[in-house]
Amino acid sequence: MSQQKPGRGKVSRLRDVAAAAGVTPMTVSNVLNGRPGASAETRARVLREAERLSYRPDANARRLRLERTGAIGVVVLDSAPDYLRDPFITNVIAGLGNVAAERAFSLVLQGVRPQAEKMAPLLAQSETDALCLLLSGPRSARERLMSQVERLRQPVVLVQEREAGGLKDICLIRQDDHAGGQILGTHLRGRLPQPGTVFFLTPELAWTAQTERIEGLREGLGKGFRIRTVPCGDESFVATQESLAKALERHPKPVAIVGGNDQMALAAVSLLQARGIAVPEAMPVAGFNGFEMFRYVQPALTTIVSPAYEIGVRAGEEIVARLEQDSFREAEIALPVQLREGGSC
Amino acid sequence: MSQQKPGRGKVSRLRDVAAAAGVTPMTVSNVLNGRPGASAETRARVLREAERLSYRPDANARRLRLERTGAIGVVVLDSAPDYLRDPFITNVIAGLGNVAAERAFSLVLQGVRPQAEKMAPLLAQSETDALCLLLSGPRSARERLMSQVERLRQPVVLVQEREAGGLKDICLIRQDDHAGGQILGTHLRGRLPQPGTVFFLTPELAWTAQTERIEGLREGLGKGFRIRTVPCGDESFVATQESLAKALERHPKPVAIVGGNDQMALAAVSLLQARGIAVPEAMPVAGFNGFEMFRYVQPALTTIVSPAYEIGVRAGEEIVARLEQDSFREAEIALPVQLREGGSC
Repeated sequence: MSQQKPGRGKVSRLRDVAAAAGVTPMTVSNVLNGRPGASAETRARVLREAERLSYRPDANARRLRLERTGAIGVVVLDSAPDYLRDPFITNVIAGLGNVAAERAFSLVLQGVRPQAEKMAPLLAQSETDALCLLLSGPRSARERLMSQVERLRQPVVLVQEREAGGLKDICLIRQDDHAGGQILGTHLRGRLPQPGTVFFLTPELAWTAQTERIEGLREGLGKGFRIRTVPCGDESFVATQESLAKALERHPKPVAIVGGNDQMALAAVSLLQARGIAVPEAMPVAGFNGFEMFRYVQPALTTIVSPAYEIGVRAGEEIVARLEQDSFREAEIALPVQLREGGSC
Repeated sequence: MSQQKPGRGKVSRLRDVAAAAGVTPMTVSNVLNGRPGASAETRARVLREAERLSYRPDANARRLRLERTGAIGVVVLDSAPDYLRDPFITNVIAGLGNVAAERAFSLVLQGVRPQAEKMAPLLAQSETDALCLLLSGPRSARERLMSQVERLRQPVVLVQEREAGGLKDICLIRQDDHAGGQILGTHLRGRLPQPGTVFFLTPELAWTAQTERIEGLREGLGKGFRIRTVPCGDESFVATQESLAKALERHPKPVAIVGGNDQMALAAVSLLQARGIAVPEAMPVAGFNGFEMFRYVQPALTTIVSPAYEIGVRAGEEIVARLEQDSFREAEIALPVQLREGGSC
């Protein structure tokens, strides 16, 4: 068994590792790609020699050998053409893209409008080794898209969903929205002089994360509080303000307003300020997500910070690990969230 | 010449078009891909029959035939890992991505940090047919990246730059920042009771678009006004507020403050409001770019709206056209901008 280190600048190849470990190149390939066949002892020796020789698989050769495309796909289902406007989405994509690049995978991006899934090249052809899905829009469109994805027979990471929708080779990654609601509820309870009704602004379309935020919030607020859900259409600035204005007319004044995301919370702050209602003195407001752009308001919003970038990183890591194994390491992953206090509560 | 229409559900193939037009499949291919050789008459006949038969080139076959990857790459050079945080960038990518998908191209996305260009799979291998570059960061990093891109010998669209940096097969696409500055300057002049100094907040790193905005603003403001440039570090919220605070201490009070982008303008609004200086009454403020998220402040910002999404669409169209011809249709394209009045001036 040869023990020489490779010279300065010399790149170790698969056959160098094989020679050093006293096995065939095929065995090295099997061990490094997690395929069965080698004994535990051989496996350990190959891994030790690969590390000692700083062996790095050549990306292109690896792709050809494995009959892979070397690409990870991201599909964003959204009803609007500017499908990258939500910072949650762009943070996930940036995190995933950075992991992909580090591991020499390309990132293929595809925005899809409901009703037009069949137009999407990524869904019509197998151009990737695995997919990450970011789905918004009506349940029917999400289900149609998932059944199209099923036909591609690729590993899938589904972000911010609780159900696999019939997909089998899948990993669900999300943030812990239930805990986020709880943390915010507990925080609010400690700051409000007395219990009462809290308005929760939510998009018209039911979305699992929103339901979990509400349930967590209810637990965190505890006895004496009730939550009134205020559906805010497409959650745009205008729709949110209109819906909140109507709710304020029709119902007794709430003790606080929580936006299902920061955009809705800030539309609320803006409406209240325009009416001369001081935030937080006359009405505390809080939100969810805490992306950088929402520091740009006075008062800064108290919010539950989303680990969206970390979700993307984790999605990338799980996909890369999956492509080296026969199945995902975990079926479901929930990343923690945290409270960021602003001046709005 | 056969005149039958294809039956319901039947897909027309290249040879159907050839038979209908009475030419060889090669001639059809040449005409559809914009290659020379066919007479004007033949060309017209082929295009007519292709349309009558609803011929759609099979994307995969086309790729093989043309030895293409069927992918368009987007490279974002940025010093931070969350390289999709700027709405200008995400709007360009969404526009480009939608055009790519319509034409059955994949979009490959790559974020690159200065000093780590060699790590980027997109820059190390030819995985795309053409590239769109979105470069921020120091000039040296941009130049290094461009010289790496040069080696790939691919058509390139460069966004928001004035110089091709040695690249030959290139199209420069930008928004008309000079006109934007002029429009805003004229608007401000009409609203200010008397001339004076206008603070212009700009990132520390010189960037062509900023220079053009300043020059246009100077022309629009006209006689009696002067512009003081206030460098604001990395243009973050904190850096902008610190730099503006110092400038306000050191220099006589300006008659207005213009942010080189909306983020900087809003950091200024926030600082002024925190000091009890009313915007616009005591200090008018304006910005550049006008993306949706910045409606979420009071008062809404007067700004020059960026056609970033349209820049992406145009980049996609020019790339697709370039791949069907020998050269780009235009060397330089400037898209118009427009003023959106908020309440901040």
